[in-house]
Amino acid sequence: MLLLIPGPVATRPEVRAALAQDIAPWDPSFRPLYAEVRARVAAIANCDLTQHAALPLQGCGHFAVEAAVRSLIPPGGKLLVPMCGSYAERMARLAREAGRVVVPLPAPSEVPLDPAALAAALAADAEISHVGLVYSETSSGVVHDPMTTADVVRAAGRRVILDAVSAFGALPFDMQAHPEIDAAIFTANKCLEGMPGVSFVLARSAALAAGRAGSWSFDLYDVLQNGLKDNWGSFRFTPPAQVMAALRTALRLHEAEGGQPARLARYRANADTLYDGMLRIGLRPYVDRAHQGPIVLNVHAPADPAWSLQGFVDALKARGFLISNFYNTTTPSFRVGCIGAITPSDMARFVAAADAALTEMGVRVRAAA
Amino acid sequence: MLLLIPGPVATRPEVRAALAQDIAPWDPSFRPLYAEVRARVAAIANCDLTQHAALPLQGCGHFAVEAAVRSLIPPGGKLLVPMCGSYAERMARLAREAGRVVVPLPAPSEVPLDPAALAAALAADAEISHVGLVYSETSSGVVHDPMTTADVVRAAGRRVILDAVSAFGALPFDMQAHPEIDAAIFTANKCLEGMPGVSFVLARSAALAAGRAGSWSFDLYDVLQNGLKDNWGSFRFTPPAQVMAALRTALRLHEAEGGQPARLARYRANADTLYDGMLRIGLRPYVDRAHQGPIVLNVHAPADPAWSLQGFVDALKARGFLISNFYNTTTPSFRVGCIGAITPSDMARFVAAADAALTEMGVRVRAAA
Repeated sequence: MLLLIPGPVATRPEVRAALAQDIAPWDPSFRPLYAEVRARVAAIANCDLTQHAALPLQGCGHFAVEAAVRSLIPPGGKLLVPMCGSYAERMARLAREAGRVVVPLPAPSEVPLDPAALAAALAADAEISHVGLVYSETSSGVVHDPMTTADVVRAAGRRVILDAVSAFGALPFDMQAHPEIDAAIFTANKCLEGMPGVSFVLARSAALAAGRAGSWSFDLYDVLQNGLKDNWGSFRFTPPAQVMAALRTALRLHEAEGGQPARLARYRANADTLYDGMLRIGLRPYVDRAHQGPIVLNVHAPADPAWSLQGFVDALKARGFLISNFYNTTTPSFRVGCIGAITPSDMARFVAAADAALTEMGVRVRAAA
Repeated sequence: MLLLIPGPVATRPEVRAALAQDIAPWDPSFRPLYAEVRARVAAIANCDLTQHAALPLQGCGHFAVEAAVRSLIPPGGKLLVPMCGSYAERMARLAREAGRVVVPLPAPSEVPLDPAALAAALAADAEISHVGLVYSETSSGVVHDPMTTADVVRAAGRRVILDAVSAFGALPFDMQAHPEIDAAIFTANKCLEGMPGVSFVLARSAALAAGRAGSWSFDLYDVLQNGLKDNWGSFRFTPPAQVMAALRTALRLHEAEGGQPARLARYRANADTLYDGMLRIGLRPYVDRAHQGPIVLNVHAPADPAWSLQGFVDALKARGFLISNFYNTTTPSFRVGCIGAITPSDMARFVAAADAALTEMGVRVRAAA
């Protein structure tokens, strides 16, 4: 069964094999693995290790986003969030429930964020200290290039918290080129092609301060201090050690493939093959070609009464492909992940399988519902 | 290398093998796995599923303890914590940083908690709503039987939050017999012999309320509502799916072994073999035999100047055994875990290895330092 979902993604056999071992994470034998993972993720983002730290956190992306918000914005502080989709909503809710003031900036979901609208929102409220940006919106498939919008934030003298969960490792990212970015968040199980269970925050160390988080578990300043104390010899709290081992293997494969540019090229080729194929079999992608990112592609549900998402998912499963059985778009759609250990030829096979599945279901009208 | 640490523990090959697969956690195919894990952990604790819920949380035990404290005690609420060791200190710090008021009750670490002292502390402060108890203190190896102390809490009309992390699956536990227990916390990687990366709170559903946690990530009420919404079809947020698969296998092995009583018997035999063996080779366990629990055993460091903990750890590693390279006792010690996929014969081999390691190191005086 090939996973075509926007994470957890299909992995390579070497990554899965790396999980299957007992590991004592407090023993010095774990140190090199931990050090290698931290060094590799920092290098992918061009971190300057005198200024930045790669801070691991047990658990999922939600946890890392909450940790970043708590650790950077004091209670009662103001965060602007352009509401481009589900992951923007996620950051807003995490911040609000943590007692930070969220200023939502209404924004369309199917085109990239307008820098002028962002600039105007910042000019209108001097109390906003941070802007929460989502690099790649999994709900829409649109990439909101933070290199453009972060410049706007810098010009306004504010700081950025970047949700790079669905982007990191594939979309370009340079911490040194963007000193306004205080934190960039990602997980192991998206474009890095590792397993779920660990997340990371790349943080500007000087932006972290003691006693701000209101949560020991999510205090990134404490994660940093714990690391500095013993030269990053051990995790703070029990790590998902097997997931870390799989991530090391995944990061080595990432480098062997040619790093971020090569991964982006493969994902872009996957997405292009899929986009072309969907059009060819009479379906309509949700987002204009110009704005379609390489991570996940939403496709309008066909108007035919024989269509059902679960029926389509099941028919594809019978053909060896697994796609999401839900959608996050405003009108019905299905979504297909373009990331993971998959290639354009997998995508070509998927297009043929989708065509056959629709025929089997009796879906004749393939125009958008 | 055999892990003799109090978690993450040595696992059986079937458990490790279950990790090595790609899993789509939002797909209905993950439902039976998730349902089986929840049902099995609830059964181990004799939960009544009309009253109790088995709530999973991504990440480590710290996270689950913080989630329980936040979800049960309102901000500013008062928690009494008998300070029996490191894990009591952990709960106290997690609660304090989350804005709850902690009343520490001084308590000796090497004997079980005195119920009379607990009763007196509760009588002295009517504002205390909850008591935070640690079932098995990993730092000392002492079991603080919550069945005795929880009765005291019930008599005083207060509620219990139980850190059962190092106990669950081996030490007896019955949620129905103890209606004063609002939450019991455990992880996959201790006595259940699974892998690290997921934790659980067994909660009395009626004790949870909306809007209390001050953290979306750690809001167990929200975990519960999310589960009820779709009949526990999917996790809230991305789960460590491979770790869950390993836990299912581990729980099946737990049942096949004979469940909690059989696991306790094996761990007790491990601990007895170790205790006897340490005495036989001239070393002195830290805790009196009467109070020594079956989870982890601390042993006084020998007084000989040739002793060094790291040297001992390394000499044991060369013989195939891995023990902790730190200690949590007030005077120098080493600690050996008695839990995991290990047997009394492993313990007998360990005793021989320890004897040989000390001889090799030139440790002649084995009396306590």
